[in-house]
Amino acid sequence: MQILITGGAGFLGQRLAAALLTRGSLTGPHGQPQSIERITLLDVVPAATADRRVVAVSGDIADAGLLDRLIDTSTTSVFHLAAIVSGMAEAEFDKGMRINLDATRALLDVCRARGHRPRFVFTSSCAVFGGALPASVPESTALTPQTSYGTQKAIGELLVNDYSRRGFVDGRSVRLPTITVRPGKPNAAASSFASGIIREPLNGEAAICPVGPDTRVWVASPRSAIAGLIAAHELASDALGSNRAFCLPGLSVTVGEMAAALERAAGADVAARIRWERDPRIEPIVIGWPGEVETPRALALGFLRDTSFEEIVREYQDSRR
Amino acid sequence: MQILITGGAGFLGQRLAAALLTRGSLTGPHGQPQSIERITLLDVVPAATADRRVVAVSGDIADAGLLDRLIDTSTTSVFHLAAIVSGMAEAEFDKGMRINLDATRALLDVCRARGHRPRFVFTSSCAVFGGALPASVPESTALTPQTSYGTQKAIGELLVNDYSRRGFVDGRSVRLPTITVRPGKPNAAASSFASGIIREPLNGEAAICPVGPDTRVWVASPRSAIAGLIAAHELASDALGSNRAFCLPGLSVTVGEMAAALERAAGADVAARIRWERDPRIEPIVIGWPGEVETPRALALGFLRDTSFEEIVREYQDSRR
Repeated sequence: MQILITGGAGFLGQRLAAALLTRGSLTGPHGQPQSIERITLLDVVPAATADRRVVAVSGDIADAGLLDRLIDTSTTSVFHLAAIVSGMAEAEFDKGMRINLDATRALLDVCRARGHRPRFVFTSSCAVFGGALPASVPESTALTPQTSYGTQKAIGELLVNDYSRRGFVDGRSVRLPTITVRPGKPNAAASSFASGIIREPLNGEAAICPVGPDTRVWVASPRSAIAGLIAAHELASDALGSNRAFCLPGLSVTVGEMAAALERAAGADVAARIRWERDPRIEPIVIGWPGEVETPRALALGFLRDTSFEEIVREYQDSRR
Repeated sequence: MQILITGGAGFLGQRLAAALLTRGSLTGPHGQPQSIERITLLDVVPAATADRRVVAVSGDIADAGLLDRLIDTSTTSVFHLAAIVSGMAEAEFDKGMRINLDATRALLDVCRARGHRPRFVFTSSCAVFGGALPASVPESTALTPQTSYGTQKAIGELLVNDYSRRGFVDGRSVRLPTITVRPGKPNAAASSFASGIIREPLNGEAAICPVGPDTRVWVASPRSAIAGLIAAHELASDALGSNRAFCLPGLSVTVGEMAAALERAAGADVAARIRWERDPRIEPIVIGWPGEVETPRALALGFLRDTSFEEIVREYQDSRR
């Protein structure tokens, strides 16, 4: 089987490819495990590759002609991770619409044109929720996103549902919590701080936290996210019923609790490197996201959740050794 | 003030234009009533016009260049009624996506480019609801439409919300019940029968009812729909909060009750012209729509509902005299 990962040069794309290569097989179109022959990593920049089964392609994900060349009937699985992150989609509206909406639709349309109904895993986000929300958000809450990013992800979910209903793809939309701890540099996501306030202090650097310590966030570790995307792929076609979008289990923590977990894992001097400076451009976006989401469907389907934020910090520390 | 009505040659578009001309004014961009100087009726076929204030333009609603020529900063209000109906959007996927999604977005983008934040009334539909629904559907139910038409309308609502939040337009999305009794000919809407089983018998013709008599439908009269679209336009910008989509009040009736109301209004011989022949292409679509929707927001905002289906039949009879 052949797999396409969009956003394949990104952190999650690289981790997903590595996990798939280790695993070696995925469920194929007829419900039987098939060995993975090729993974194509598509991104705007070339992805790092070491395994002979991996092909890196750099290009524009919204270029339908490129997608047309990359996807054929042997592409039995698509993991669509490429996106313009929340802060940038808010700052550059057209860019967000083009990548988060047009590219998603172009990808679905190429799959449809092939007619072989590949499994299609779409990374959605809990940013689809917004407006007046209860403290713990039922998964069935109506979507009234308060960011363009959340709007574009909600539209992607609707498209994945309709393209699946019509038999164009076999789709699954996974609403990811905020993923932390991401390695590397800060990015333009409004949630970037959720990794930065752990990562930078552990690197001996100061990190600015743009929201107050009482702000509650809904997070998951990279490991849980990758396991969740693969488990979503492996679900039977009818496991999700008439709504193929579901929320991945996460942890509900306040940012203050995150700092306390960092202190327990790495010491008070490390945690003291967090500087609390509210940012009026970021804080309203983060506060508008759910602090906790009920995930009965995913839990019933066997998806795992992280056990504590301290464990997430320690997992990140281990990954750096 | 100048008004654009898309779908202006259609039944609702024509009725809306007539109602606006009779009314003579609408609330303008600064919250003050302004007299209506011009109404442009855009449709694929030329709209009938008699009033010197009305201009009919025929063309492709998805043609951004045409929209660009039709909308300027004096276009203070847009009523977006043009759509590919449910049955056709199901049969011709690309056509539905082009008109129901791409044209809606093109229209919003031209408004955005002008920068004057016109009022934008989008006709959505209760077909945005679908999947497992309770007998009476709370307005806040998550949208899992089970038709491409409903999907495209749900996406339109998300776009109207985001374009409004960003200040590109001042939008309001009105989820219409099934409108009955429409004059004229049957169309490709799965709901076409809801008018046909009243209209054709009154014209001395047989009508096929493609769903069983126990099927519950959510309906409103043309008069209520037009009054609702105008009232939606007149709402203050902040009246709808963070979700600018709301459901117009309707009546919940079974198709058998509709036939009984026809019998009371016009006699048993007329009602006997309904032939009950279930259609496996239409019935599942209709059954998938809500039979009743709770509309607390619209009722609190003063929107009216029809009092009985018999009154709707008599209103249609009066309109033919």
